[in-house]
Amino acid sequence: MGLDFVTVLFDSPFAVMNTIGLIAFALVGSAKAIREEFDLFGITVVGLAMAFAGGATRDLLVNRVPLVLQSPVEVSLGLLGVGLAVALSVVLRSPENHPITLVADAIGLAAFTTAGAIVATEATVSVFGVVVIGTINAVGGGAFADILLDRSPFILFDDFYASCAVLGGSAYWIMGSVGATGSTAAGVCAAVTVVARLVAVTYSWNLPTVQTLGVLSERMDDQ
Amino acid sequence: MGLDFVTVLFDSPFAVMNTIGLIAFALVGSAKAIREEFDLFGITVVGLAMAFAGGATRDLLVNRVPLVLQSPVEVSLGLLGVGLAVALSVVLRSPENHPITLVADAIGLAAFTTAGAIVATEATVSVFGVVVIGTINAVGGGAFADILLDRSPFILFDDFYASCAVLGGSAYWIMGSVGATGSTAAGVCAAVTVVARLVAVTYSWNLPTVQTLGVLSERMDDQ
Amino acid sequence: MGLDFVTVLFDSPFAVMNTIGLIAFALVGSAKAIREEFDLFGITVVGLAMAFAGGATRDLLVNRVPLVLQSPVEVSLGLLGVGLAVALSVVLRSPENHPITLVADAIGLAAFTTAGAIVATEATVSVFGVVVIGTINAVGGGAFADILLDRSPFILFDDFYASCAVLGGSAYWIMGSVGATGSTAAGVCAAVTVVARLVAVTYSWNLPTVQTLGVLSERMDDQ
Repeated sequence: MGLDFVTVLFDSPFAVMNTIGLIAFALVGSAKAIREEFDLFGITVVGLAMAFAGGATRDLLVNRVPLVLQSPVEVSLGLLGVGLAVALSVVLRSPENHPITLVADAIGLAAFTTAGAIVATEATVSVFGVVVIGTINAVGGGAFADILLDRSPFILFDDFYASCAVLGGSAYWIMGSVGATGSTAAGVCAAVTVVARLVAVTYSWNLPTVQTLGVLSERMDDQ
Repeated sequence: MGLDFVTVLFDSPFAVMNTIGLIAFALVGSAKAIREEFDLFGITVVGLAMAFAGGATRDLLVNRVPLVLQSPVEVSLGLLGVGLAVALSVVLRSPENHPITLVADAIGLAAFTTAGAIVATEATVSVFGVVVIGTINAVGGGAFADILLDRSPFILFDDFYASCAVLGGSAYWIMGSVGATGSTAAGVCAAVTVVARLVAVTYSWNLPTVQTLGVLSERMDDQ
Repeated sequence: MGLDFVTVLFDSPFAVMNTIGLIAFALVGSAKAIREEFDLFGITVVGLAMAFAGGATRDLLVNRVPLVLQSPVEVSLGLLGVGLAVALSVVLRSPENHPITLVADAIGLAAFTTAGAIVATEATVSVFGVVVIGTINAVGGGAFADILLDRSPFILFDDFYASCAVLGGSAYWIMGSVGATGSTAAGVCAAVTVVARLVAVTYSWNLPTVQTLGVLSERMDDQ
């Protein structure tokens, strides 16, 4: 029975990505709520909200009842992530900014981008739809957690967060259109997203702002 | 005709709970907006948003067009609640914190938890789905109203708010699984939720935070 | 082919209104993000969010997959609006408050109110449903953009914003119920909304607040 259960969690590219994403994002969401000194109920809610909001939005967009309301397995995975965050917070001073959490966040981002792209492809939306649904699946949870925490959703300020999901979703679509199998496309999508995110965190990448462009053009005017 | 109209409002456990919840929550939402010195349009919007956001989210989750957009009766009930709040604000200095509003909020919470649990049970989701949809129906409106009012949704800080809905939704499911009729399950769900909430408000109940647990474990370390 | 493309954008009252609304609201959303010094990614996200959030919510409410995920044309129109805002910001100091942006906002409001009312009428909801879906289509994008920008959604404070959409949606329904054609109803709806909004902006219209009413009644008591 234990083996059967493990089989359910990993019997398709979607299931693998979904399982990894749920645990990772529940951990990250709970770590954020712990930092804000939320109570245990709040920590659980923010953790589960971060794990499930992206996927539930994805399911609503393709017009089906959210998976999390149908499958008890999903909830158990989310609670596992919440438990990991609480355990980490006993060991570490600031779990939100610890490398473990940053890596978990990058892994969750990659896993959910891929899960979203797979669902979108099955629902036959446009190319833009595949990238958007992958990105919403990936960043929707974090954005919703930030709103619950009364922060401005960070994805807009730390621009190589959502951009990584956009890159990964585009990679998924390109792999599919050149004839790769679903598993290969899923692997490439996840790899592109997680590598892009880890590199962005390591080197603190940013995109230029309009103000930066303005400064550049003023400098050019001066010459 | 008057009698027929009353019949429609109370002809099933769902209709009873929905009617009570709509009036109560529209009153509470409007009272919040009055405190924030919103204009009449804002007061009406926040009141109706608090009354309808939870149920509309519930309907979207089970994949149907929100009831409020189909039935003119629902809107009239919401406007009745808004009118009651405006009338109260003429009589009372601070309608938001008055016992009448706190009791209306507890009653609305109980009524909507029950309405959500009934709809979820009919939509055949998992046990977790029943509790989640009941809770979202109950707290979704208040959370949305808080976002409109630019507050952090209070449910996370005042933890025995959403917890009451979780308790009520669980009671509904337990009653159903031991063979109780729909009406009995609905009554028990509503009673559990409203009593839990009123007791929580009276004694200012809170759940422990991780920081509290940390303090406790430090004390244990000292010994 | 160029002519065919133009035909798609304008081959029905819905298509005309949708095309105008998407460009106008993407421009306005991006102008807001530029003022908040967001980076290029953030500007694009806020612009597209303002253009698409209202229509996507409308589509979810009538239970269909959002048009924006199915049609690549929609995205191009949104990006055109974003590009216009960036171009304007090079020429103008404060694009958000410039008359061009205020007029674009009024035009977008009118176009989306009409688009929403048309979709709602086809989905056979109640009269209230037609007005609500028109209004949500019109103000949903701006409200979502404001949440992304960490502002309180302005629609509640500047009450003759959403009120204009309510007036326009009501006009659409009235025209339909007196037997006007779809095109006539759409034209009247758009005209009522845009004129109401421009007049409201010009004369800084406001609705009375409960506090204002309180002051009035106190004055009457004094006499």
